[in-house]
Amino acid sequence: MKATPQVLKGMRDFLPSRMILRHYVTDELRRVFERFGFEPLQTPAVEYAETLEGKFGEEADKLIYRFEDRGGRNVGLRYDLTVPLARVVSMYPELVKPFKRYQIAPVWRAERPQKGRYREFYQCDVDVVGSTSMIADVEVVTVAYQALRQLGFSGFRVLINNRKILHGVATKLGLPDSQAALVWRAIDKWDKIGPEGVRSELLESGLSPNTIDQLYELFETGQDSADTLDNLNDRLSDVPIAVEGIRELEQIVRYLSLSEVPPDFNRIDTHMVRGLDYYTGPIFEVVVEQPRIGSICGGGRYDHLVGMLGSVPFPAVGISLGLDRLIDVIDELGMAPSDVGSTVTQVLVTVFEPSLLGTSLGVAASLRAAGINTEVYMEPDKLSHQLRYASRKNVPVVIIAGPDEASRGEVIVRNMVTGRQNQIERGALLSAIQSEMDAAVSTGVASP
Amino acid sequence: MKATPQVLKGMRDFLPSRMILRHYVTDELRRVFERFGFEPLQTPAVEYAETLEGKFGEEADKLIYRFEDRGGRNVGLRYDLTVPLARVVSMYPELVKPFKRYQIAPVWRAERPQKGRYREFYQCDVDVVGSTSMIADVEVVTVAYQALRQLGFSGFRVLINNRKILHGVATKLGLPDSQAALVWRAIDKWDKIGPEGVRSELLESGLSPNTIDQLYELFETGQDSADTLDNLNDRLSDVPIAVEGIRELEQIVRYLSLSEVPPDFNRIDTHMVRGLDYYTGPIFEVVVEQPRIGSICGGGRYDHLVGMLGSVPFPAVGISLGLDRLIDVIDELGMAPSDVGSTVTQVLVTVFEPSLLGTSLGVAASLRAAGINTEVYMEPDKLSHQLRYASRKNVPVVIIAGPDEASRGEVIVRNMVTGRQNQIERGALLSAIQSEMDAAVSTGVASP
Repeated sequence: MKATPQVLKGMRDFLPSRMILRHYVTDELRRVFERFGFEPLQTPAVEYAETLEGKFGEEADKLIYRFEDRGGRNVGLRYDLTVPLARVVSMYPELVKPFKRYQIAPVWRAERPQKGRYREFYQCDVDVVGSTSMIADVEVVTVAYQALRQLGFSGFRVLINNRKILHGVATKLGLPDSQAALVWRAIDKWDKIGPEGVRSELLESGLSPNTIDQLYELFETGQDSADTLDNLNDRLSDVPIAVEGIRELEQIVRYLSLSEVPPDFNRIDTHMVRGLDYYTGPIFEVVVEQPRIGSICGGGRYDHLVGMLGSVPFPAVGISLGLDRLIDVIDELGMAPSDVGSTVTQVLVTVFEPSLLGTSLGVAASLRAAGINTEVYMEPDKLSHQLRYASRKNVPVVIIAGPDEASRGEVIVRNMVTGRQNQIERGALLSAIQSEMDAAVSTGVASP
Repeated sequence: MKATPQVLKGMRDFLPSRMILRHYVTDELRRVFERFGFEPLQTPAVEYAETLEGKFGEEADKLIYRFEDRGGRNVGLRYDLTVPLARVVSMYPELVKPFKRYQIAPVWRAERPQKGRYREFYQCDVDVVGSTSMIADVEVVTVAYQALRQLGFSGFRVLINNRKILHGVATKLGLPDSQAALVWRAIDKWDKIGPEGVRSELLESGLSPNTIDQLYELFETGQDSADTLDNLNDRLSDVPIAVEGIRELEQIVRYLSLSEVPPDFNRIDTHMVRGLDYYTGPIFEVVVEQPRIGSICGGGRYDHLVGMLGSVPFPAVGISLGLDRLIDVIDELGMAPSDVGSTVTQVLVTVFEPSLLGTSLGVAASLRAAGINTEVYMEPDKLSHQLRYASRKNVPVVIIAGPDEASRGEVIVRNMVTGRQNQIERGALLSAIQSEMDAAVSTGVASP
């Protein structure tokens, strides 16, 4: 016996019941993104290695799936959707700026697979390229807010910080770049390991207890965003880059209050750092607190990335939703609407005997023309087998087109939840089907 | 000055106006596939090389993008969507059979790029696994028919043949397998180089003139499918495998006549061979004759492929639409509906000055809530710049929210085609917008 072929570790097949849920989520996301005028973009999975490398930081670079193609070119699978966007903006100067695009697509990272971390996973990115206005930053945050609302999330919050403030703090404390990187890596764990945990990491990285105290004071968070901004203003007013960052955050907080986002949705979080090298200004992280599932979305401003790739620099800001995470949570909490089931099929039409195949195909064709997803059973077979097929697939309604009914111009409509059967004239079939489907969906058979 | 980064040869970026068209096409295809009860499936881009190799024929195997991953595994990018399907069926015995699935996804082939041939391109596959019934074969053909109709195609035809008949002919003529392969490759060019062109290729491959005459007689096509089947019956009745093939084609022709497909849509074409090694029975090719764009879809029965991959064999049949080809044609012939334009944005709301940003954001929020795709301009700017942005992006309607209007609770609605402007009360905005958009779409501004 042969070994069964396998899927690669960290990569996944999405079987139909899962894909139906994924389609529901990505369709909703597309709708929200387009509602804000973000345009769809698609780029190839494979890019020149040169395009991908040196954008994400050293650790990340190691995780790029890299290989030589048949023409001896060094290529790689895309690591994110932001670098391909930057390449696109560099290559097509005719794109009208600000260029607002979304992309929902897989990316590949040779990470050690673990629960919730995959080697092929999907990102949903929304970006604005070509504007320095904080309205752009607020817009990508607002889109993320609306997308999550649309999917049924409620208790979540966007944490906001600014890389410019982090740079300002490093300047104020006189930290060299190499040490600053270690410090931010430690600070980023604030929520996970707490102030004391961070303190011991900082001590290890060579920071003096005195510097750590200064750092903690600079970073003290206030009662609310306004309070935190006041603190930052007081303490960093002598560092121009920090002041610039604070002004930006002030604008963001003001614009958010004008947008359709409730006021307690945002919070300045001075300890939020985010991993990617290319951020230059405001950074965002959306955290779902109710249910407590943590970070589900992140992003920020990256004003230098496009310039790293092409000859013309463009400021840019974007946000990325973790699709796989979102879907896991929607699935676990049963947040999808009840008509998002485990099969797309709404009606199965049975086939009694070869001579009645024409009747079955005719019934199916009329249902499909009316917009009902309809299967015809694949061969004349025992009724019990055909019903078993419908039942195993969770098809809510079966139409039995037997010889007696056919001769009378009727069919039997069977509700697979209640088992109830009705003889229905062909002419009245559509309305009968519709009410059976409504009943079946509301009692839940079509849900996975 | 840095070199502008490039996209790899044979791979493509789909910019927004193109992606909007692609979304239109794939959404329609999804709808048709689901109408017949085909379920969505998604598989990873990367597979074990072992899974991919030895399924397509030697020439094709060389075109697989193969590499070693960081764990030293031999892997490759998928070459088609059929082999991943066969793997999935082998791996998940719990999938209810017959298993009907569709998949719309990119595949990769290291071909020499040329017009219409890409290294990354999209396939749309519809397959039925687990049934030997010719109803399955007819269903995949019917789905292809409906999909093409839905997209606006009319003058097209499905050519049908059967690999079993080809095997029968080879048996009857005493051709060894290696020679048969050369013969089929030549015969497959019938439509391109004509009977005489094929004859000289056959002579070169070592066939005697006498054998070629016999071959041509066996393959003679009749007036219509029934006639061709009669000829085949007469001439191959002593070759069991051919008889089996003829019986299958007879069933297909009969079932097609019972389905929602017009009778002249199908034709038995004894010279149609198709390239892939794994076909075992009926094979299909859909050719668009009006406009004359040739083959746009192909498929067939492959009863051994699943068994090659796993321990349990399953019969299967499927059809694959060439998405890129379809989209090229729809684009060139302007077959998309007029609301499939070059931007998703329906309305742009201008921003006059920072103090009026709240008004602009409020107007935008109310339009979005009503389902209208609405952009807010990214920063206070001259009105002429904002109108120019709308015009370059082909946004059909602009809302001007200036200080005078704001103070009266009004806005100006500008139709970007006619240039006409109306003062509208905020309360009457939605209906005003709707009629402007209808007008703009019907005069064509939203089309690319």
